[in-house]
Amino acid sequence: MTIREMLEAHPQPAGGDLEARARCIEACSDCAASCTSCADADLGEGDVQMLVRCIALCTDCADVCQVTARIVTRQTAPEVATVRATVGACIVACRASREECERHAHHHEHCRICAEVCTRCELACAEFLASLPG
Amino acid sequence: MTIREMLEAHPQPAGGDLEARARCIEACSDCAASCTSCADADLGEGDVQMLVRCIALCTDCADVCQVTARIVTRQTAPEVATVRATVGACIVACRASREECERHAHHHEHCRICAEVCTRCELACAEFLASLPG
Amino acid sequence: MTIREMLEAHPQPAGGDLEARARCIEACSDCAASCTSCADADLGEGDVQMLVRCIALCTDCADVCQVTARIVTRQTAPEVATVRATVGACIVACRASREECERHAHHHEHCRICAEVCTRCELACAEFLASLPG
Amino acid sequence: MTIREMLEAHPQPAGGDLEARARCIEACSDCAASCTSCADADLGEGDVQMLVRCIALCTDCADVCQVTARIVTRQTAPEVATVRATVGACIVACRASREECERHAHHHEHCRICAEVCTRCELACAEFLASLPG
Repeated sequence: MTIREMLEAHPQPAGGDLEARARCIEACSDCAASCTSCADADLGEGDVQMLVRCIALCTDCADVCQVTARIVTRQTAPEVATVRATVGACIVACRASREECERHAHHHEHCRICAEVCTRCELACAEFLASLPG
Repeated sequence: MTIREMLEAHPQPAGGDLEARARCIEACSDCAASCTSCADADLGEGDVQMLVRCIALCTDCADVCQVTARIVTRQTAPEVATVRATVGACIVACRASREECERHAHHHEHCRICAEVCTRCELACAEFLASLPG
Repeated sequence: MTIREMLEAHPQPAGGDLEARARCIEACSDCAASCTSCADADLGEGDVQMLVRCIALCTDCADVCQVTARIVTRQTAPEVATVRATVGACIVACRASREECERHAHHHEHCRICAEVCTRCELACAEFLASLPG
Repeated sequence: MTIREMLEAHPQPAGGDLEARARCIEACSDCAASCTSCADADLGEGDVQMLVRCIALCTDCADVCQVTARIVTRQTAPEVATVRATVGACIVACRASREECERHAHHHEHCRICAEVCTRCELACAEFLASLPG
């Protein structure tokens, strides 16, 4: 992704660590894509009835990750309380999705990969939050 | 909107008050539309330089409201922690957008209307949160 | 929804019929909500295996409708080719979702309602397209 | 991104070239992020009044790219007409955004980068469309 170069080209970079911000955006984008794909792969499995909660949680997680990527990308005149609350919600959604995917990781490769991507997103979000001033 | 009928037709209605859920979804959808429109109207004003923060906050708020409407709509096997965190983030985003719109309400009718819609969304989200069990 | 008042308060209203624009946005918002809810209700049904394509098409339709509502809402310096192509894609997505929902309308009330909402969205999109200049 | 591995782990891969599909999703995700960032960077520039159309077109393009990434990601029981129409709309939105960004590329590095990312997305979408059967 070219998001790092884009953040650097911004006329008024926001507070916090630009590297942590870029990693958070990349992790959220990747997690949105993986969760979208995992919910869709679940839907194509023969045992879809067993995967209902995985579809539900991955669908929610994809939505929250996608919006979090957008909010964290925006550096002009942001409201830090909104950024904190959104990234916090993203960590919660990723954790729920990851825990459910882990339960199916031995049967479904897409769940195994998706759980790893969710874990990376939780960490990248937490590191970005920690990098924010005040 | 037909969301109330849709929620009632669900085979496994989620916990909490269905009326409060429907009002929350409607308020989030309306706020997403108003904030999208307010950011766009700001962009068309002659004094756009004065409205930069209004554009930024309304754009974020539209994104968060739209995702919150989706998360609250879904009743199958939800993770209540994700629902709470997302609706909580929505209240924060609406408050920020509302406070900024109020500063421009005397000059711009779209900011005046948008501030009202944000207020209704904050209330509907808070009432839905209060209706959730546990 | 308050979108009509918001469109009227815009400093530079776009071309075309404002009423048709407002109806298109409202229909797309309603269809996004109904399709999100229908996919979720399908997921909670005992015969989810029979509803896989309905979940897939309603999920796609919800996404396309939500973005179409945003694009049609924005009146500042728009690119009419983008508006036309997006609204056109929305009609295609609504038709696919509606045809699949109709197949399940006798068994599932949420599919019956959702098919009606999709039909209204197809019509509102077509009327908005017809109202655009050039 | 891990989208390629996710697509390969799908139980029922969709028709067309998996490599072209993965490149299309990656290009749309990257373009959504760049256009979100470019609109936000424009908003922070001193000459924001000159960048109004760039903000408008990049905001639309980010929305269309994000939804296109989702639609192309989903392989279970898709409607190919919806896929074609959405990817087609994405090419139109990217072209509009790219042409406007090119006008500002000499003054603003974020516009220069964003124009390149839009170009790559147009190409990846066209190649994916060409790879679809029928």
